[in-house]
Amino acid sequence: ASNKTLLILPGDGIGPEVMREVRRVIEWMDRRRSVTFNVVEGLVGGAAIEAEGSPCPDSTVAAARAADAVLFGSVGGPQWDQLPFDQRPELGVLRLRKDLGLFANLRPAVVLDALADASSLKPDLVRGLDLMIVRESTGGIYFGEPRGIEVMANGKRRGIDTEVYTEDEIARVARVAFDLARKRRNKVTSVDKANVMQSGRLWRAVVGEVHKAEFIDVELENMYADNCAMQLCSRPKQFDVILGSNLFGDVLSDLAAALTGSLGMLPSATLGAPDGAGRRHALYEPIHGSAPDIAGKGVANPCAQMLSFAMLLRWSFGLDEDAALVEKAVERVLAGGLRTADIMQAGMARIGTSVMGEAIVREL
Amino acid sequence: ASNKTLLILPGDGIGPEVMREVRRVIEWMDRRRSVTFNVVEGLVGGAAIEAEGSPCPDSTVAAARAADAVLFGSVGGPQWDQLPFDQRPELGVLRLRKDLGLFANLRPAVVLDALADASSLKPDLVRGLDLMIVRESTGGIYFGEPRGIEVMANGKRRGIDTEVYTEDEIARVARVAFDLARKRRNKVTSVDKANVMQSGRLWRAVVGEVHKAEFIDVELENMYADNCAMQLCSRPKQFDVILGSNLFGDVLSDLAAALTGSLGMLPSATLGAPDGAGRRHALYEPIHGSAPDIAGKGVANPCAQMLSFAMLLRWSFGLDEDAALVEKAVERVLAGGLRTADIMQAGMARIGTSVMGEAIVREL
Ligand SMILES: CC(C)[C@H](C(=O)O)[C@@H](O)C(=O)O
Ligand SMILES: CC(C)[C@H](C(=O)O)[C@@H](O)C(=O)O
Repeated sequence: ASNKTLLILPGDGIGPEVMREVRRVIEWMDRRRSVTFNVVEGLVGGAAIEAEGSPCPDSTVAAARAADAVLFGSVGGPQWDQLPFDQRPELGVLRLRKDLGLFANLRPAVVLDALADASSLKPDLVRGLDLMIVRESTGGIYFGEPRGIEVMANGKRRGIDTEVYTEDEIARVARVAFDLARKRRNKVTSVDKANVMQSGRLWRAVVGEVHKAEFIDVELENMYADNCAMQLCSRPKQFDVILGSNLFGDVLSDLAAALTGSLGMLPSATLGAPDGAGRRHALYEPIHGSAPDIAGKGVANPCAQMLSFAMLLRWSFGLDEDAALVEKAVERVLAGGLRTADIMQAGMARIGTSVMGEAIVREL
Repeated sequence: ASNKTLLILPGDGIGPEVMREVRRVIEWMDRRRSVTFNVVEGLVGGAAIEAEGSPCPDSTVAAARAADAVLFGSVGGPQWDQLPFDQRPELGVLRLRKDLGLFANLRPAVVLDALADASSLKPDLVRGLDLMIVRESTGGIYFGEPRGIEVMANGKRRGIDTEVYTEDEIARVARVAFDLARKRRNKVTSVDKANVMQSGRLWRAVVGEVHKAEFIDVELENMYADNCAMQLCSRPKQFDVILGSNLFGDVLSDLAAALTGSLGMLPSATLGAPDGAGRRHALYEPIHGSAPDIAGKGVANPCAQMLSFAMLLRWSFGLDEDAALVEKAVERVLAGGLRTADIMQAGMARIGTSVMGEAIVREL
C-alpha cells in the first residue's frame, strides 16, 4: 500500500480519452496490487481556460506542488488558437515546468520489435532503436529576457527573443544526461551550435567541465545541431543519450520520436532537482499532442499515456514491478496483433481507444 | 561569349578537389560553347587563415563584391578547431553572407531517380522528392546583439545570444519564397515557434501580411519547427517550399538534405537583393562541408559542386542552356552506373573524384 498523491491533468483533445484508460489500470492496481494512490484531478490548458480563465490556474500549480507526481495529458486546440500569446493553452505546460523547476525533460525514442515497420526509415536502420533525449526545459530562448515585439523609431516592428544559459543551468541538466548514460550504453552526445552561438560555446565548455570532473568514465561527443538532425535521420542507432538546450531538444526530440513511426507509443518525463530528502517534482506525459483532429472519436492510441504512467510508477514511486507489469501488458497486446489506427499494419486488428485500454487491463 | 566575372573560392578539405573538376567543365565551355568567363580565384576559410591570417580577408570580400557570382567550396577542419571563436574558418562564410547582403539561402532537396535507394527512408516516401528550403541568412540569432559570455556578480558565467528580426528582414525573404513557389508547386510552408517565441510571432504575422498583400494565389501553411522536423522525416513529399529563420532553416535544411541520402549531390545558392539594374550578389556552394576525413584521398563526390556551378550559370548568368547541359551530363553519368563512394550502390562501378569529373566532361 502507498499513500502517494498522484495529480492527473487530462487537458484537451485526446488527453481525457487516453487518460480514462489509465484510470482503469489504476483501478485494477487498487484491487489487485494493493497499491493505492491518492488520485487528484486538476485542470490545465484549454479546459482550464474555459473553467477558470487561465491555462494554468494557481490551484493547479498548488496541487502539482503538493503531489508526489503529475500525470499530464496534452493541451491545445484550434478553438484557442486566436487567443493572445500569453493566454494560450501551451502556457499551461510552460508554467508548470517553470514553477515546479522541472528542468530536465527526458524523451525516450524506442522502437518496439512489433512496430519496426511503422517507421518511415528502412527497418534495418531503426530495429532495436533505443535512444534518450535529455532536453533542458526551464531556460534558454523559451524564457530569456528581453523578449517581445517592439516598434522601432522608423515605425517598423522588431521581434526579439533571448537565448541565455548560466553555467549552473547547463551543468545540472548535463549531470542528468551523464547519470542516465551510466545506466544505459554510457555515451552522451551533446548538441549545440558552438560554431555560431555564444550560449552554445558556453554549453560545450560547461558540459566538457562536468564530464571531466565527474563523469570521465562516460563517453562524451559534441555535435552541431544541424549535423545531429542529419545523423538522426540517417544513422539513428549511433546515439545513446542526446543532450540539448530547450530549443534544440524540442526539435530533435520530435524528430527522434517521428523516426520511430509510432508517436502514439512514446512517453516522457520532466524532472526537477531532488530536495534534501531525495524527493523531486516530476511530470509525465505522452510525446504526442492533443490531436484535435481525432479527439472525441474514440480512436486515439492510449499506449503513450499508459507508458507515461509506467514511467511515473518506476521513477517517482519506486514501483518497478508494477511499472514492468504495465509495460509488458502493452507489449503483449501489440504482439497479439491489436493496433489503434495510428500504428495500424496489414494483417493486424484495428481497434479503438477503449478496446485497447481493456486489452491492456486484461493482460494485467 | 560573355564577360562575366566568376570568383572561385575552393576553401578547405575536399573543396579544392571538387572545384578542380568544375574547372574542367569551365575549360570545356571555353572551347566548345564560346561562353568565356573571367575566372578569378580567392582565399577563404582555413586556407585564408594560413595565407593571410584571416578566414575572410578584405581582398576576398572585395573580389566577391566585384564578381558577378561566387562559386564557393567548403571551409573548416580539425587543424583550426582550437582557434578562438572569432578567428575560425566558418567565420569566412558568415562574413561573406553578411557583407554581401546574401539574405536568402536556397537549398533544394531533390532525389534523383537513380538514387532513390540511397535514402534512409523507404523509397516510396522519397521517390521524386523535390523540395526547396529558403533560409534567412543574414539575421536572427547568428548575428543579433547582445551576444557573448559574461561573468555574473556571483562569479559564474552566462552565455547570451539574441534572436532578432525586423519586419523588413522577414518580408524580403518571404518574397523570395513566394516567388519561387509560383515557379514550382505554388505552396509555401513557413516554419517558426510562434507558440513560444516573440520573433516567431512576428515572423508568422509578417509572412501572413506579405502573403495577403502580394501572393494570395500561393498556398501558405504555417508550421511549428518541431512539427516540421517530424513531418520532414515522416512525409517529406507534402512540402514544396519551406521558409524559415537562419537557425530553423539551418537545422531543417540539413535534415532535408540528409533524407535524400545523397548529400554529395546537393547544391545551394545564397542571394542578395537585386539592385536597380536587376543585378544581385549571389554565392553558390555544395550543401556538404569540407569533409576533412576524406580530403586529399581523391574519393569525394564532385557532383554537388558541379550542380552548384550549374545553378550559377542559370540564375546569375542566365545561361539556362549551359546549365541544363551540365545537369543532364551529371544525370547521365549516374544513370550509366558510375558512383563515388558516398552514393555507392550494389551493382554499380565505384570511381573517384577525377574519374567522375572526366565522365561528366565526356557526357558534355
Ligand atoms: C506546447 C509547446 C509549448 C511545447 C514546447 O515547444 O516546448 C511542445 O512543443 C513540447 O515540445 O512540449
Ligand atoms: C559553417 C556554419 C557557420 C554554417 C551555419 O551554421 O550556417 C553551416 O552549418 C551552414 O549551414 O552553412
